[in-house]
Amino acid sequence: MGDELVFVEKKVFPDGEIYVRVPSKPSGVAIVVSSTHPPQERRLLELLLTVEALSSYAQGSVIAVVPYLAYARQDKRFLEGEPISIKVVLKALEAAGASGLLAVDVHQPRVLSEWLSIPSKNVLPFEDIAGYLYGKVKNAVVLAPDMGALERARRVAELIGADFDYLVKERDRVTGEVRVQPKSLEVNGRDVVIVDDIISTGKTIALAAKSALAQGASSVTAVCTHAVMVQGALDLLYYSGVREVVATDTVPSPVSKISVAPSVVRGLRELLEDMI
Amino acid sequence: MGDELVFVEKKVFPDGEIYVRVPSKPSGVAIVVSSTHPPQERRLLELLLTVEALSSYAQGSVIAVVPYLAYARQDKRFLEGEPISIKVVLKALEAAGASGLLAVDVHQPRVLSEWLSIPSKNVLPFEDIAGYLYGKVKNAVVLAPDMGALERARRVAELIGADFDYLVKERDRVTGEVRVQPKSLEVNGRDVVIVDDIISTGKTIALAAKSALAQGASSVTAVCTHAVMVQGALDLLYYSGVREVVATDTVPSPVSKISVAPSVVRGLRELLEDMI
Repeated sequence: MGDELVFVEKKVFPDGEIYVRVPSKPSGVAIVVSSTHPPQERRLLELLLTVEALSSYAQGSVIAVVPYLAYARQDKRFLEGEPISIKVVLKALEAAGASGLLAVDVHQPRVLSEWLSIPSKNVLPFEDIAGYLYGKVKNAVVLAPDMGALERARRVAELIGADFDYLVKERDRVTGEVRVQPKSLEVNGRDVVIVDDIISTGKTIALAAKSALAQGASSVTAVCTHAVMVQGALDLLYYSGVREVVATDTVPSPVSKISVAPSVVRGLRELLEDMI
Repeated sequence: MGDELVFVEKKVFPDGEIYVRVPSKPSGVAIVVSSTHPPQERRLLELLLTVEALSSYAQGSVIAVVPYLAYARQDKRFLEGEPISIKVVLKALEAAGASGLLAVDVHQPRVLSEWLSIPSKNVLPFEDIAGYLYGKVKNAVVLAPDMGALERARRVAELIGADFDYLVKERDRVTGEVRVQPKSLEVNGRDVVIVDDIISTGKTIALAAKSALAQGASSVTAVCTHAVMVQGALDLLYYSGVREVVATDTVPSPVSKISVAPSVVRGLRELLEDMI
């Protein structure tokens, strides 16, 4: 964006409390870029403290850019007595003094407008993902891990000129074996691309990859936006026969090769226009 | 208080995110009791999530009882570009849905009214501390670690019938040695009680204890409200000649022997009356 880059000073007190300081006074709008991958709560507090520091220090508004927004999956009360965790995170950001929020590929984008009264923007990195995949897969099928994520598969498929479908889990009534397969498409002889928003343990995609290969797929590529990757997810995916695991760089990892910077900059410009 | 006790269900997702659930519907006011000692950010988020869960689930208000309130020492911008960390914590609690807050011995109690628009209460545990010390020390001098904490020493001293003073640090111009000694009182032949709000690394009190013993004190007792105790603080204190280290139970530790429950219950009843 051609703006000045400032690194926030950080330290940890002996008792574990986080300290941050913005070392120079921003003259205009301040944009804080900080993901909230594990350890989520510490990164979140660091972000909140930085936003608070800037809210009195900067001369303009403070925009929080949170490439990976933690707690986005607990977006409703699935059971009575549960919290809406993402509401807590968003309300805390606003209460800390954020005047705008940009996040990338939020699990349920509606939570932004639902729980914030400040302007917000959800950036979808489908073009960045498609740009990476383009030319790497042939006669491809893009699969969503479940019906809810079908739109994601459709968008990526259209951009790379592929078919798309979603995966259904079926348990064999006799053997009890769980099989995961596309709802209607055949994968035999085709390059399969499974796209998801987050890969965490990677268990679902590993199962899907095994099934696709058993059904004759030429290759399986696993693509996600947020490479949270816990409990040896990468090992599990490669062990399951996945040819390549690739992610955007919203969360640092060995496979976070697709930069969302261009999409984030576009989104930021739009957000800034909305805020004028 | 004669109220129903409910344990909040907790688990941690594979990616490290915290999950809480209140297993039964509170019929009246819900009081959430949760300290925010290390790991501060995780305990804080757990508290925020519980408050949020209750804010829609309970039929009455939700009062957060936070015996140890983390980040209370960063209560102003000591340097330009710093955050007021305690403001972030308090605003997050209110934004999560708390309708009242009770904390114990907050470093600067003014922060509660400064950053909250909900009713709040700071409970001082001096009577609980004095009750523990009473009869255990003779011809005692109660010392505050610095002038700012003199009122704390005075309150405890009055309750146990002792003298009080505060400690001053002096560096010997010739040897460079740092000495810590009471501003005006002699400690020779007397039982010394050093009172502080938080013992974290214990370094200041360890230095004060050594000096007092070198100046002929019969014994040194170190008392605090919040036994945060990091980096081997307890070892350091005993190694420095402290006869006993004792704290209230706002933070669990081997020396957290003084219950603040009676004071908290009194404070809660007052807070509830303020809220009607």
